[in-house]
Amino acid sequence: MAENNVQKIPVAVLAGTGMVGQRFIQLLENHPWFEVAAVSGSQRSEGKPYGEICRWVLPERMPESVKRLRVRRSTPDEIDTPIVFSALPSGAAKEIEPAFARAGAAVCSNASAYRNEPDVPILLPEVNPNHLGLIRVQQAKRGWEGLIVTNSNCTSTGMTVVLKALQQAFGVEKVFATSLQALSGAGYPGVASLDIIGNVIPFIGGEEEKVESEPLKILASLEGEELKLPDAVISAHTNRVAVVDGHTVCLSIALGERVDISQIKNTLANYSPEEAGAGLPSTPKPVIEVRPEENRPQPRLDHAAGKGMTTVVGRIRPDKIFDVRLVVFSHNTIRGAAGGSIYNAELLIKSGFINGIENPFQNQ
Amino acid sequence: MAENNVQKIPVAVLAGTGMVGQRFIQLLENHPWFEVAAVSGSQRSEGKPYGEICRWVLPERMPESVKRLRVRRSTPDEIDTPIVFSALPSGAAKEIEPAFARAGAAVCSNASAYRNEPDVPILLPEVNPNHLGLIRVQQAKRGWEGLIVTNSNCTSTGMTVVLKALQQAFGVEKVFATSLQALSGAGYPGVASLDIIGNVIPFIGGEEEKVESEPLKILASLEGEELKLPDAVISAHTNRVAVVDGHTVCLSIALGERVDISQIKNTLANYSPEEAGAGLPSTPKPVIEVRPEENRPQPRLDHAAGKGMTTVVGRIRPDKIFDVRLVVFSHNTIRGAAGGSIYNAELLIKSGFINGIENPFQNQ
Amino acid sequence: MAENNVQKIPVAVLAGTGMVGQRFIQLLENHPWFEVAAVSGSQRSEGKPYGEICRWVLPERMPESVKRLRVRRSTPDEIDTPIVFSALPSGAAKEIEPAFARAGAAVCSNASAYRNEPDVPILLPEVNPNHLGLIRVQQAKRGWEGLIVTNSNCTSTGMTVVLKALQQAFGVEKVFATSLQALSGAGYPGVASLDIIGNVIPFIGGEEEKVESEPLKILASLEGEELKLPDAVISAHTNRVAVVDGHTVCLSIALGERVDISQIKNTLANYSPEEAGAGLPSTPKPVIEVRPEENRPQPRLDHAAGKGMTTVVGRIRPDKIFDVRLVVFSHNTIRGAAGGSIYNAELLIKSGFINGIENPFQNQ
Amino acid sequence: MAENNVQKIPVAVLAGTGMVGQRFIQLLENHPWFEVAAVSGSQRSEGKPYGEICRWVLPERMPESVKRLRVRRSTPDEIDTPIVFSALPSGAAKEIEPAFARAGAAVCSNASAYRNEPDVPILLPEVNPNHLGLIRVQQAKRGWEGLIVTNSNCTSTGMTVVLKALQQAFGVEKVFATSLQALSGAGYPGVASLDIIGNVIPFIGGEEEKVESEPLKILASLEGEELKLPDAVISAHTNRVAVVDGHTVCLSIALGERVDISQIKNTLANYSPEEAGAGLPSTPKPVIEVRPEENRPQPRLDHAAGKGMTTVVGRIRPDKIFDVRLVVFSHNTIRGAAGGSIYNAELLIKSGFINGIENPFQNQ
Repeated sequence: MAENNVQKIPVAVLAGTGMVGQRFIQLLENHPWFEVAAVSGSQRSEGKPYGEICRWVLPERMPESVKRLRVRRSTPDEIDTPIVFSALPSGAAKEIEPAFARAGAAVCSNASAYRNEPDVPILLPEVNPNHLGLIRVQQAKRGWEGLIVTNSNCTSTGMTVVLKALQQAFGVEKVFATSLQALSGAGYPGVASLDIIGNVIPFIGGEEEKVESEPLKILASLEGEELKLPDAVISAHTNRVAVVDGHTVCLSIALGERVDISQIKNTLANYSPEEAGAGLPSTPKPVIEVRPEENRPQPRLDHAAGKGMTTVVGRIRPDKIFDVRLVVFSHNTIRGAAGGSIYNAELLIKSGFINGIENPFQNQ
Repeated sequence: MAENNVQKIPVAVLAGTGMVGQRFIQLLENHPWFEVAAVSGSQRSEGKPYGEICRWVLPERMPESVKRLRVRRSTPDEIDTPIVFSALPSGAAKEIEPAFARAGAAVCSNASAYRNEPDVPILLPEVNPNHLGLIRVQQAKRGWEGLIVTNSNCTSTGMTVVLKALQQAFGVEKVFATSLQALSGAGYPGVASLDIIGNVIPFIGGEEEKVESEPLKILASLEGEELKLPDAVISAHTNRVAVVDGHTVCLSIALGERVDISQIKNTLANYSPEEAGAGLPSTPKPVIEVRPEENRPQPRLDHAAGKGMTTVVGRIRPDKIFDVRLVVFSHNTIRGAAGGSIYNAELLIKSGFINGIENPFQNQ
Repeated sequence: MAENNVQKIPVAVLAGTGMVGQRFIQLLENHPWFEVAAVSGSQRSEGKPYGEICRWVLPERMPESVKRLRVRRSTPDEIDTPIVFSALPSGAAKEIEPAFARAGAAVCSNASAYRNEPDVPILLPEVNPNHLGLIRVQQAKRGWEGLIVTNSNCTSTGMTVVLKALQQAFGVEKVFATSLQALSGAGYPGVASLDIIGNVIPFIGGEEEKVESEPLKILASLEGEELKLPDAVISAHTNRVAVVDGHTVCLSIALGERVDISQIKNTLANYSPEEAGAGLPSTPKPVIEVRPEENRPQPRLDHAAGKGMTTVVGRIRPDKIFDVRLVVFSHNTIRGAAGGSIYNAELLIKSGFINGIENPFQNQ
Repeated sequence: MAENNVQKIPVAVLAGTGMVGQRFIQLLENHPWFEVAAVSGSQRSEGKPYGEICRWVLPERMPESVKRLRVRRSTPDEIDTPIVFSALPSGAAKEIEPAFARAGAAVCSNASAYRNEPDVPILLPEVNPNHLGLIRVQQAKRGWEGLIVTNSNCTSTGMTVVLKALQQAFGVEKVFATSLQALSGAGYPGVASLDIIGNVIPFIGGEEEKVESEPLKILASLEGEELKLPDAVISAHTNRVAVVDGHTVCLSIALGERVDISQIKNTLANYSPEEAGAGLPSTPKPVIEVRPEENRPQPRLDHAAGKGMTTVVGRIRPDKIFDVRLVVFSHNTIRGAAGGSIYNAELLIKSGFINGIENPFQNQ
């Protein structure tokens, strides 16, 4: 797809005024394939220009092109783009996302509403692009012309990339995961400042359940029309800390075989995604960055790695009980949310799943 | 010991101008048994009044009584109190603490220099007061009239109190520990602000080794003249976070038997120390506080529990791989450092180990 | 008033579940004269035990005695204590506080609703106890048996104590004030963490207006039945910073005469309140603490000065345009809110303004 | 200067391993005119590759091209680039910078060592490019073939841009300035984390003196061979807050004439530099950004304005004592330090002051 002389694909952002919605809009500015043609918001803001009603909370300036977009209602009647990015809260997503899928749109959702459905993939293009095979099952079963794909919970994202690399090389059997999560993961206004200044909150509602189940679904093998979960188990502690962007996760991992730490480092540093997830505009470069320092990754220094799409790993060392310990870092609102959904949309296009849109690679 | 009409026991604080040294001096103000008679500091400050050379960094005001104390050198020639609290850095402690022990003083040390010696107890009076039995071994072997006892590393302290309660009720076999540690644990100036504002540092030099070994020594059984380590193993991840005081540790624990979570809660809530560690001025009240809320303990809300001596536990729930998960909180410069050493000195007095000092309980 | 054998005066806390309400309840625990007999809260919480419905956000533990108090409605029908502390939001205070005053209660309010009424004093007992003279005017004019007194806005409090000391010694003509204010001043949940972590917000709604007018009313002279404002002017910038408790204000002041900096330091250090405001349980000791260090006051080190009631001043130095520059610090939820209202109630008792309550000093 | 087919100008960074030195190197990556050919560091690091010895503390990755540069000594014998950027501490700068100027280099210094010399300009190209007239005076007087220009103290920078716009439109007579300054201004390790987490430090050594004098020198008029200071006075309070990058300054300003607030807004929003400072690679776009929101500027949201080169202004409103109040924000290590020096070097090239380097605009 030549970037200059071909029309871009119009996309919509549902719930575009929230924390993740804003990140969608920021990341889509100057995207080589997509352009934001519609945005939805709360009932109160309908019909008003996005630039007037959105309380923008990102340091990057609001793109000029969206300022004049009138905020629409989240219905296929009002929004008919072939691709719809959903930053809806889970409750609303339950109703609204299927309406769009039924109407023919590809819904790339950041909501958790459909993540547990057996025919809806949780998709990380650098990990399980083959789970796109579920789409035909989904469309057949539900009678949809469109589709829903989801990205994983923001804490699960980075650790699953690492677990995939280890799984395919050595097998993964048991995982202890303790997270130190950023505030932007709770949305805006989210966590009260008095609760987190000089403090730690050792609890995030519903998070441990997601961290314990979503990676296993992503690591599953697609057998026929069903995902077969790996024989592995994850135990999670999730904590909120006073960090703006980027989740840190300490992992202790029991592998399927005994291996040297140096092999593990090499495996992670050299991990590359399957063909399908490679070469897309949002493909992380590199997929995994292995830091040699004893005190990395760190949110302040690593949040921008690979424009927020790279998974950063450090402190790879033997574990006293299992096989290996390490620390994973991933940007929660980019790789773990909006950037991940955009990457999913790119994969859908490359794989020919978007109605009426040709694969931009075909002409190259 | 009547608090008003009996002379208090003079004590000294070695390295009294640093972060932990200041905490010693603050906690010893108005102590019912002890009174600060001497303080040592850097060579530069020798001979000068403490009030002039100490850059005081605690919110509690510097006690008037120490302001005029002249800073002395850390030698038994200059300091001859029966009890000596050591906030020395580990290197200096290696040389200086034995000199005091040889001269007859009871050294209650916060340094790590002697923690790994087989005849030096790491003492938590609410956990292992019987390890005082090592003192006679130590004195016989080294020819000392005095003695050295140490308190544990600040991160190990709270988790060891919890592990002791579980060990004696159910047995403890495997422990995953991930810490979120406060800045005061690194001393002053310690961590650079640019390294921790809005950030996490997933590494603390030497800390994981301590967290993996010290609790096991404290949980050991004294058999004859030797400690027999329990058949257990700990794996640790240690992290620095933007908290001023108080270490949080997430634990996943494999017990020796299957038990209900409610039994574990009861065991922890009702844990009381052996007779020896009970009833002292610094005995935590309660020893363990079990919080029922889903989001506790928290540094901001729990750092003052039991005047900083209580171990606070929350989120007691089943683990997906081991038996139980929970979160432990303990004040690192009080229970985990200065307060712990003072508690140790009280135990030594009660147990008759201080030369020339009668047990204050005998007259009651 | 003997503290042990005389019955304490029952008091109520209106809106006792919020940030300031909790501070009232914490400060009233073990108060020598008062005891919390009633607490009101939101409609949703009416009838339920305080200990169950209050989301307690202070590190000090909730007093046992209030846990079982049933939350009542904020009406004199349900609450008939002679003293009522109001932590109501300003809108609610407008209606509710007069109802209590009409019914005979002394309302000590932290709300701004009546601060601008000419017959309602903004009372700082260490500054303007003589403004109690307005009470008789108020009662006559409004036909109340009870009364309303207010404390000032939390930012105005500390700076007004300093301005009073300077005014009576040298006169005060012009004041530039720039604040760096704590988060607890915005209540709970208050400021979103994403807005303040690693950030500054250079705006607080309505705050500058208060800082520019309230100190002048407090510094006014009572002439007959009216307050006569001083011939002075204040210009304010107010900022929110990532501090939990305690407001810092940078002041540049034009005095009525030229004086040495040393005179100013002495004047502030030796400032003592009029007889009426002295000797009460909450009288700050000292009223003003002058710090000699070049980098004080600081919230972390000075928030507990005089149990949060003392005004701390530092960096007293010549100004390049006006006469003197200095930095003032005051605890916003203690001296600047709940502690201030309690201090006001003590002054009312001493001055004989509480119906049916004798001055506890009379029997001494 | 065509960016691709013309050789870039080699430049050196003195003290390239510190906080400001790293910022120089990061900003110079991909600079259209310059390329880092040499870097100096501490004696300990001499001869070693920059990539090995530099503890890099910026989120942007260290440029590949500098990793292999061997760290040199800060002498003209070892470093002979026509342009030298100095991030030296002031003491070292006093000796080293003149050695380079004598040897023919143009020293663009971030140090304060020469800022107060009457023949050394403090240069802000968007404010006082005509002060380059001092260079010939400097070279004649000191017998240098090269030269020294300095940029201003980081706190002075943004406020001086604003004062210049107001001065040329209305005159400026008196200024009260209260700063809330970022941690990166103190270098690395700089401020101890325990001093600033949840805290404010109302003092920065030497800063108020700089803020009170440097803007006046920059606003001076060049008359013959001398700067004539404006008849204005500044009074400053400087504070450190828990912000990583970007200084906020609250200003109250007495102008030379009475004007409407709307005129002031227009004047600031439309301010453009003299021809000389315009059109350079680092010229801020825009020079001043006027924010209409009531709560801006903010460090988190505005630090990246104009790639860190734009001065952001908000809250423009009448002052109660002087004429206008406003809040200024400027990135302290970009516009206020490294970016400012680079901008100065660009101005020197455009103005023909670099030995042997033609003005790159001449061929266009």
